[in-house]
Amino acid sequence: MEDFTDLINYAKKIAAETDKVIFEIVSGKPKLLYDASLHLIKAGGKRLRPLATVLGGRLFGLKEEIGVKAGAAVELLHNFTLVHDDIMDKDEFRRGVPTVHKLWGEDIAILAGDLLFAKAFEALLRLADYGIDNEVIVKAARELCWASVTVAEGQALDLSLSKLETVTLDDYIEMIYKKTAALFKASLCIGAILAKAPEEEIDKLASYAVNVGIAFQIRDDELGLVADEKKLGKPVFSDLREGKKTVLVIYALSKASEEEKKFLLSVLGNENATKEQLKRAAEIIISLGALDYSNKLANEFLEKGLRALDSIHEVDSEAKALLRKLALFVTKRQY
Amino acid sequence: MEDFTDLINYAKKIAAETDKVIFEIVSGKPKLLYDASLHLIKAGGKRLRPLATVLGGRLFGLKEEIGVKAGAAVELLHNFTLVHDDIMDKDEFRRGVPTVHKLWGEDIAILAGDLLFAKAFEALLRLADYGIDNEVIVKAARELCWASVTVAEGQALDLSLSKLETVTLDDYIEMIYKKTAALFKASLCIGAILAKAPEEEIDKLASYAVNVGIAFQIRDDELGLVADEKKLGKPVFSDLREGKKTVLVIYALSKASEEEKKFLLSVLGNENATKEQLKRAAEIIISLGALDYSNKLANEFLEKGLRALDSIHEVDSEAKALLRKLALFVTKRQY
Repeated sequence: MEDFTDLINYAKKIAAETDKVIFEIVSGKPKLLYDASLHLIKAGGKRLRPLATVLGGRLFGLKEEIGVKAGAAVELLHNFTLVHDDIMDKDEFRRGVPTVHKLWGEDIAILAGDLLFAKAFEALLRLADYGIDNEVIVKAARELCWASVTVAEGQALDLSLSKLETVTLDDYIEMIYKKTAALFKASLCIGAILAKAPEEEIDKLASYAVNVGIAFQIRDDELGLVADEKKLGKPVFSDLREGKKTVLVIYALSKASEEEKKFLLSVLGNENATKEQLKRAAEIIISLGALDYSNKLANEFLEKGLRALDSIHEVDSEAKALLRKLALFVTKRQY
Repeated sequence: MEDFTDLINYAKKIAAETDKVIFEIVSGKPKLLYDASLHLIKAGGKRLRPLATVLGGRLFGLKEEIGVKAGAAVELLHNFTLVHDDIMDKDEFRRGVPTVHKLWGEDIAILAGDLLFAKAFEALLRLADYGIDNEVIVKAARELCWASVTVAEGQALDLSLSKLETVTLDDYIEMIYKKTAALFKASLCIGAILAKAPEEEIDKLASYAVNVGIAFQIRDDELGLVADEKKLGKPVFSDLREGKKTVLVIYALSKASEEEKKFLLSVLGNENATKEQLKRAAEIIISLGALDYSNKLANEFLEKGLRALDSIHEVDSEAKALLRKLALFVTKRQY
């Protein structure tokens, strides 16, 4: 087992610095709106995306301090998507606390998300005040735009896949690429762009990010099936209740007997499914070998991502070593 | 009565060109999401904000073509706010068609708004591909950020004022400054920024925009009380039903007898108010002289805005003449 101590300590340091930047940027009136906007940020989170920005920048010589300021932008964008997704998914808990719409109502939650979205761009554009070239700021902001568009497309795909009976593995991978991996990619590439890294090196970093991002989401979907509620910070089996077509569900449906399939489809996306039925559905999915399959799949993506990382010509080998650990950390088996 | 023919013809030309830019930028998959995002844009609208960007730029020598491309950004931002506001206000019609959430549901409407938001920034940042200096692009994008933040604050204020019994004129003016005038100001200033206008000229243009924007919103609030449903494109009296504290309501409450006040407060913000009760409330508000008062107030703001415009040192006097007409056009009495 890998020793993650140095990564975790560095992550904590970057998280604290990122939060300082965020609290400075996200302040204003009316108080209600700003309280709602900061709620999830104050509730916790590992700030792995800003960490990725800092390390992606450091690889090519960007000052950590600038990486943190840019990292605040991707963390703000991430939190914006969480606030809006929670409304759509009707999730009541996140990071162990009630969601924004649960506490302030949907109207303020929509606005809080919108505010965080605007503040994400503000965080990046403010780099002009710190002597960063306008050319790379524009390039970085375009990367943030691309991620925003792609994440919205991914969420729309996710909503539509939930309503389909048959979803292919390719559909699922495209969806999690857009919904999860795209922002992880942007987080890293924004750091590299600000460091003025060569295009071909940015492409390799993007390949690392996309593959690790997909592997991470597969692991996260596993957690939705096997983790306990406390660890998850939200009700277990909510993916099943919402009818999410994770790789586990896709695999299980392809291997299930007619009877099992009928039962699974009667539970998936059924708002009135009982806890017992959800538990039974999870047992069937596991018994069909879905976790072994997803484990294999996650490892393939992880390996591909690590190979891309290895091929990068970096100027900071410590940053590269930390990115290797970050990949292992976010994709480690937690069951 | 002013002859608006030249303004209207120019507005139509700019609208057609803006739409071309918007349709090019807002395209992709899933189709559902992009259809929902383009719905209100296809339903009509005068595109007065892009027109403002073009004219604000032309004042200081910006090419019309670049003004149109930047104008697409403010129109996209405007439509994003309409889609999200309609969800919050539970409005079912806009521009004579059902609202986005009414046709596609709230989830897709939230996402469609988010997508338009991201595309607004994309439209501005793309100017880098047309030889515009990165420095002014960053400055213009910061202005768009400021507007996004301010509009969200304004909408939050609007929601909270609706729930209060006592609202002052200052509260109302602050709210419509943020909710309406801020984006009109950004629309004009983005044009001037891209034209590299001097700071003091941009400040004068901002003063024109803010004052005309406030006058426009006062007129728009009047329409909610007196226009017919067909002209309005949405149900009449919806402001009263939602309990919006417009200048008309604030004035009427300050002049009403105890009995009238009691009746007005029982109808304002009451979802179950009948059409008859709403009509009676509107009659009371009008009988108390609210329209005379708002008319006077709108004219004061308009005059202040026109004085600011007069003081600008422009390079294109036709653009200045059109901006004068634009101010008169958006603030003309329609009852």
